[in-house]
Amino acid sequence: MSSCIHHCPSHHYQVRLPHRAGAGSLGPPRPAAASFALPSCLRRAARARAMSAEAPPGVAPAEPGPSATAAVLSEMVEDAAVWCAVHGLVVGDRDNPRSGTVPGVGLVHAPFSLLPARLPTSVWKQALELAPIFNELVDRVSLDGEFLQEALSRTKQVDDFTARLLEIHQKMMAVNKKEDIRLGLHRSDYMLDSETNSLLQIELNTISISFPGLGSLVSELHRNLLIQYGKVLGLDSERIPRNWAASQFADALARAWSEYNNDRDGRIVSVVYFRAGYAPNDYPSEAEWRARLLMEQSSAIKCPSISYHLVGTKKIQQELAKPNVLERFLDNKEDIAKLRKSFAGLWSLDNEEIVKSAIEKPELFVLKPQREGGGNNIYGHDLRDTLVKLQKEQGESLAAYILMQRIFPKASLTPLVRGGVCFEDLTISELGIFGGYLRNKDRVIMNNPCGYLMRTKVSSSNEGGVATGFAVLDSVYLTDEVAEFQLTTDY
Amino acid sequence: MSSCIHHCPSHHYQVRLPHRAGAGSLGPPRPAAASFALPSCLRRAARARAMSAEAPPGVAPAEPGPSATAAVLSEMVEDAAVWCAVHGLVVGDRDNPRSGTVPGVGLVHAPFSLLPARLPTSVWKQALELAPIFNELVDRVSLDGEFLQEALSRTKQVDDFTARLLEIHQKMMAVNKKEDIRLGLHRSDYMLDSETNSLLQIELNTISISFPGLGSLVSELHRNLLIQYGKVLGLDSERIPRNWAASQFADALARAWSEYNNDRDGRIVSVVYFRAGYAPNDYPSEAEWRARLLMEQSSAIKCPSISYHLVGTKKIQQELAKPNVLERFLDNKEDIAKLRKSFAGLWSLDNEEIVKSAIEKPELFVLKPQREGGGNNIYGHDLRDTLVKLQKEQGESLAAYILMQRIFPKASLTPLVRGGVCFEDLTISELGIFGGYLRNKDRVIMNNPCGYLMRTKVSSSNEGGVATGFAVLDSVYLTDEVAEFQLTTDY
Repeated sequence: MSSCIHHCPSHHYQVRLPHRAGAGSLGPPRPAAASFALPSCLRRAARARAMSAEAPPGVAPAEPGPSATAAVLSEMVEDAAVWCAVHGLVVGDRDNPRSGTVPGVGLVHAPFSLLPARLPTSVWKQALELAPIFNELVDRVSLDGEFLQEALSRTKQVDDFTARLLEIHQKMMAVNKKEDIRLGLHRSDYMLDSETNSLLQIELNTISISFPGLGSLVSELHRNLLIQYGKVLGLDSERIPRNWAASQFADALARAWSEYNNDRDGRIVSVVYFRAGYAPNDYPSEAEWRARLLMEQSSAIKCPSISYHLVGTKKIQQELAKPNVLERFLDNKEDIAKLRKSFAGLWSLDNEEIVKSAIEKPELFVLKPQREGGGNNIYGHDLRDTLVKLQKEQGESLAAYILMQRIFPKASLTPLVRGGVCFEDLTISELGIFGGYLRNKDRVIMNNPCGYLMRTKVSSSNEGGVATGFAVLDSVYLTDEVAEFQLTTDY
Repeated sequence: MSSCIHHCPSHHYQVRLPHRAGAGSLGPPRPAAASFALPSCLRRAARARAMSAEAPPGVAPAEPGPSATAAVLSEMVEDAAVWCAVHGLVVGDRDNPRSGTVPGVGLVHAPFSLLPARLPTSVWKQALELAPIFNELVDRVSLDGEFLQEALSRTKQVDDFTARLLEIHQKMMAVNKKEDIRLGLHRSDYMLDSETNSLLQIELNTISISFPGLGSLVSELHRNLLIQYGKVLGLDSERIPRNWAASQFADALARAWSEYNNDRDGRIVSVVYFRAGYAPNDYPSEAEWRARLLMEQSSAIKCPSISYHLVGTKKIQQELAKPNVLERFLDNKEDIAKLRKSFAGLWSLDNEEIVKSAIEKPELFVLKPQREGGGNNIYGHDLRDTLVKLQKEQGESLAAYILMQRIFPKASLTPLVRGGVCFEDLTISELGIFGGYLRNKDRVIMNNPCGYLMRTKVSSSNEGGVATGFAVLDSVYLTDEVAEFQLTTDY
């Protein structure tokens, strides 16, 4: 790891900090009213500092000496945890049995990275640029009912859930149902692949997008920390992009409501927002399916419509990555090139050559079940075993999965705060860009990025959303490290 | 209690709600994702409704029927608890052992009243009017060092803590220390006495004023609840006065800082804010006393100065209530009349006649120790026993207490929410008006009320701050019930 300390674009500051000060041993932590264990990262930081080639040899630190740095970071942890408590950056504490059952009790600060993740400005701009193009793509694909039905025809043989969704979609096609006003609240997730030096899309979410609220808050947390401590840390709070995800999504919903009511009078439901409905568990009985159908049949704006929902499936992601498919939906060649550049390798299990490669080198692939919801991806030995088993069965069950190129983001040592305690671990980061899209017939009312979500995950875990305990909330610190990514222009 | 339902000025809405709807039995609670026990208050409400003389007999409810009302209130509890979680209206959960030790963990919504407390607009205006007068009084009294030393001379014989404060004050007098810039952040607490129909001051706090932050938030909570549910409840969110206590106090501190730096250059401490220092426990060793002295000797603006601190003692409150004492400090006769009208009976234990009365009728008095910090007041039998014991001793220990007229606020049934659960209890309310004062020599820069804090306490408890578990945070709902209080004009 040490060779990556200065160059990996996603790394955090804990490993940079020491280089700003001279060598020296770490003093004892300041005695605080609230007793914090001294983060082990600070001790490691001191060691890294002692080894740093950047620290001018023999020169005493001009600003924060070792113990000052330790004290500052310890103070930051405390300030940050308090900030979370008084600004609603909280989640339910799994250790509290009432949490999640009774609102307002058993709260704990959301797990967060103490400092924002470094990201080259060029990559940031690239990700923002992609948001309206993906928004438009979703809309165009949603209009091609035949494509959706055809692309998912094999998936539905093996996946009852997708089959039910397709059934509703089919009914809408049968009555030629048109959605004049279409609202999309999406999030496209990316990682920076160290092998190809490129920003690669992990997935595109089109239903029940999580974290616009907490994501906005953690950016504010980091800004506030850097406003207070930026000088001593040598960091500029202005390099954290503003994040209005929550209010921009709310604005999109309000504009949809307003657009709908411009044309109609009376007290009817104008916008249906799906906070659930993306997983089989959300439909415990036929009643929920009837409700879903009823909503789809109504004239209300659905966020998402059944079509938008289906466009977000992994199978469609994989279909769109095939040669010449984007061209069916988009006209602008530059846009198409930008999208394609962000696509990782995606294959169906019909592709025998790729399946063979994956069995040989499972470490280069991820096997993804067609359905939504984190925590189900298959890696390594399990991937190999599953593929071998599926090959033997030779049935339709192959259609329940897609294979994806495994992305290798560089890992960095990051101070993470969970349960009020700071600890350091090797992490990788995943950048989500929220996108809002609203159109009424031919008039596009909104099509833009709507803030972002950085999730930083302990790199030893193959996968994991923040909610499953493997990751922390994070934000972005823009850097000028452009050179490395200009290499990827011709990719 | 039932006779008080329509008239007591401090009562809450739970007992009014039913009168808006027709008679009928209460339906089952709506099944909610989060399981809330149906507040017992709702069942009682239904009974009260059935008995109500105001409900037009035989007329079906025009708006929310009984079960609708139950569902609405149950929904309100849930919404309110969630609002608290995401807006920082949280406190440490005493059931969590890490809470209070590690910031950001073991959080729970602050206990609150589900609906704001009714208060006649006339009383509200009276309380606001008093704020700048009390601010000015504190300032004037603080300048009369001899008065403070003299008034507290006997107290210091029996109270080491006051003696130490007076010692510092004496040292400042000896060197003729002047505080050109004086900053006061105060809170004057009142109750509405049902015996005299008047607003009576409980105490005036001049150091480490609590709850400007949570107080502001609970007003916002109630406003938001009424914006959402006001129509169905027949309540108007605009009747909750805006509460900017936290930002107004912050503004006062910033203006003090700015005022100080107008005259000086360089990096020195300009404002010292005391978040502690008001209780003996805050001075575990001589080091803290040396620090207090050092700060007092410095040219920094102290909030509060030692003089302001001493003016807030109960003994000074009692001295100021003596005839002709206010006239020593204030010129404006109307101001003096307004202050005096808000004074409850206050006596030193030198007053043998009053001590005799208190032993005979202890229920009409409160015995207050001289020192700060809730939970130490003595009532009833204990008051009698203590007075008898003190009389026998006949020493200086009499000076450690003052006697105060016991105030009898009307009690009302109020829905309280604690730990996510709503329950109903008989409560009384105490109104605190924050006041901010800043002057530089002859120039008064700020002198105004700075928001408010309503604390609603279970009336069976004689005393108790919110933090001690006997009370909930509350806000104000202004009513037009003026008549009752016009009676008190000549009091």
